[in-house]
Amino acid sequence: MKIGIICIGDELLIGQVIDSNSAQIGLLLSEISLTVFRKWTVSDSCEEINYALQSSVTDCDLTIISGGLGPTKDDITKKALANYFKVSLVFSEQNYQHLYNLLSARNIEVQEAHKVQCMVPSNADLLNNKLGTAMGLWMEKDNRIFIALPGVPDEMNAIMKEEVLPRLKLLSTNEITSHRTFLTVGYGETDIAYRIEPVLNEMPEFIKVAYLPAIAQVRLRLSGTHKDKNVLNETLDFYSNQIRNLLGSIIFGESDSNLAFELGKLLMNRGMKVGTVESCTGGALAAKFTSNPGSSAYFKAGLVTYATESKESLLNISTQLIEEKGVVSDEVVRSMVIEGSRFLKVDLAIATSGIAGPDGGTLQNPVGTVYIACGNEHNQIFKRLSLSRNRTRNIEAATILALSLARDWLLARS
Amino acid sequence: MKIGIICIGDELLIGQVIDSNSAQIGLLLSEISLTVFRKWTVSDSCEEINYALQSSVTDCDLTIISGGLGPTKDDITKKALANYFKVSLVFSEQNYQHLYNLLSARNIEVQEAHKVQCMVPSNADLLNNKLGTAMGLWMEKDNRIFIALPGVPDEMNAIMKEEVLPRLKLLSTNEITSHRTFLTVGYGETDIAYRIEPVLNEMPEFIKVAYLPAIAQVRLRLSGTHKDKNVLNETLDFYSNQIRNLLGSIIFGESDSNLAFELGKLLMNRGMKVGTVESCTGGALAAKFTSNPGSSAYFKAGLVTYATESKESLLNISTQLIEEKGVVSDEVVRSMVIEGSRFLKVDLAIATSGIAGPDGGTLQNPVGTVYIACGNEHNQIFKRLSLSRNRTRNIEAATILALSLARDWLLARS
Repeated sequence: MKIGIICIGDELLIGQVIDSNSAQIGLLLSEISLTVFRKWTVSDSCEEINYALQSSVTDCDLTIISGGLGPTKDDITKKALANYFKVSLVFSEQNYQHLYNLLSARNIEVQEAHKVQCMVPSNADLLNNKLGTAMGLWMEKDNRIFIALPGVPDEMNAIMKEEVLPRLKLLSTNEITSHRTFLTVGYGETDIAYRIEPVLNEMPEFIKVAYLPAIAQVRLRLSGTHKDKNVLNETLDFYSNQIRNLLGSIIFGESDSNLAFELGKLLMNRGMKVGTVESCTGGALAAKFTSNPGSSAYFKAGLVTYATESKESLLNISTQLIEEKGVVSDEVVRSMVIEGSRFLKVDLAIATSGIAGPDGGTLQNPVGTVYIACGNEHNQIFKRLSLSRNRTRNIEAATILALSLARDWLLARS
Repeated sequence: MKIGIICIGDELLIGQVIDSNSAQIGLLLSEISLTVFRKWTVSDSCEEINYALQSSVTDCDLTIISGGLGPTKDDITKKALANYFKVSLVFSEQNYQHLYNLLSARNIEVQEAHKVQCMVPSNADLLNNKLGTAMGLWMEKDNRIFIALPGVPDEMNAIMKEEVLPRLKLLSTNEITSHRTFLTVGYGETDIAYRIEPVLNEMPEFIKVAYLPAIAQVRLRLSGTHKDKNVLNETLDFYSNQIRNLLGSIIFGESDSNLAFELGKLLMNRGMKVGTVESCTGGALAAKFTSNPGSSAYFKAGLVTYATESKESLLNISTQLIEEKGVVSDEVVRSMVIEGSRFLKVDLAIATSGIAGPDGGTLQNPVGTVYIACGNEHNQIFKRLSLSRNRTRNIEAATILALSLARDWLLARS
């Protein structure tokens, strides 16, 4: 099945917004062994959308259109689709009911303007959007399928996962695709590829490996496609075991998970509570824990001592120590762990102190220098990181590597 | 001048890499009032690159090709260009000299493999790449211009700025494009469109409006294209003023900014320091402040009292109050502000308490109920939010709306 993606929006052409939607669509489709063939990006104009539809339909069996389903004037995808299919826009009672329920739940009164959003091409099936008012559209013509999705990433993502992928799965061939995903921390792609090379050389053609790098993390995915489900799963399991043996504790989890969530499991097993004492990560570390449902079972509290004064007054770290060693030092970050675990009354405290940038570096501690530490009153471990010059990346990397250090601390206490 | 961009790379289609290059090219072109007309993304294949070149040349005067100029097997852009122009690849002494100088400076010996990179289409002018070995290419055919750039973002960026833009400036017509961007919070697209409708109906054809929604925020953009720079800017300024009047304090900033950064400016003007006291947002609120460079000038400290016990022991909120009113109540969130501002020694404390979900709702406080409050010991304002069932969205929305509430509090203290 050849697939084309059409991204609609002036903001994508002038570069004000980076298109991450089409990449996300590509990733989701790859989960069911489908590959995007071509992409077009065009402006918010009926003429341009029509151009892209004509181009896509020439070679593609399926066209996915992203963006322009909202209620405002620049949202003209539905009009363009109606023109293309030579059908009219009709008021959809189903869409209205959906919109009404969603807005009522949020105590928003339904306005006349909202009703415009319920006009859909008469040949469209609606795809449920549990997160927003704009429903997705599924249309067919001359054996070609057209899917229109809203541009808001969460909404697009949810409709793809819950509505589009299940339908596409039914249409695709009788080959089965299956995946095994390993979540790793602290090593780069090249390192991981080097370590698993012996396995890679042995794997049959129908199994493919992909590395999906994030900051300080790599997701390693094995994907297989085969007619025989048993052969497929047995082969995947066989090589998965070899990869687990070669990578060992670099793998912190499998499938859909995240480091803070896996840390939560280790904490619960040990009946421990964790707390955070942050300087340069400024709340991002606590937020990693609390972004997970159920985190209150192991995450107790956090403190962001951003100002040096707050480190002294809230944590009783001595002014003398700070003056002697500097706030970015192993002594101070370990004091943050000791004082923080007492103050927050937790079994494990994780602390960060560093220079996230882009300014504020010194000769001794250039931008990107971060100390991370964890432990309790009696026992602490720490690490000095030399990161980049980019503030956003440094905060994320320090956060992930601090979680990884805490994981090492917990694993030594099994 | 109509401009097409061709992005080359399998990784872009399967979604393993998000294409930020073409957005960056769009931004750079808009600096000299040029607008990208269409974009194509195709795989690393001669056939596909040829398809994209044929498509682009049909309507575009200028085609910019990004990626595939490197030394590895999947870098086939130059071969595809040579095929398209029906010319041969020739060894470029200029490129070799460039590569030799660059590698020598890095103490790398020039290998036979490096020389492959010096083969260029015979009709190409070379564009200097001070950061890498792959030089850019400038080609012309039948009054159409073709520019090929390496895919490495820094190298692409440098060649665009130092080689391409100066040349294009000389060629471009006298039409100018300009933008005005308004950042709004707390209202949806529909609401904003409704409020500015009187202005929209009056605006001349050469000005377009676009709405770029995010969670609890909308970016509103006016774009205009005109031959007369003065007419363009005066018209944009005229309607911008009307929009400012109609939207009032819904607009929290203009151009590239964010709410926490704008709040920082208000705080600095008033010589105030802010702190956060979070429950359901779990560190995300503090992280919004500290993600901005220079935030230590106004953000002092934060506390995440996630466990009910921590609210009692760290903030001295009475067990009786919590038992009577519940942790998700206006009384508790206001206590968090009062006790938090004292404890953190800040002029303004911002607090959140709620049920982020997906579980944990009650009849009185269903999932998505969040109380936000801000102020100090003497004076607090609060709001009850009814959000969605999605944890990630709820945390983001509560964070943004808490910042917005704090902005209201500060604006009342000018």
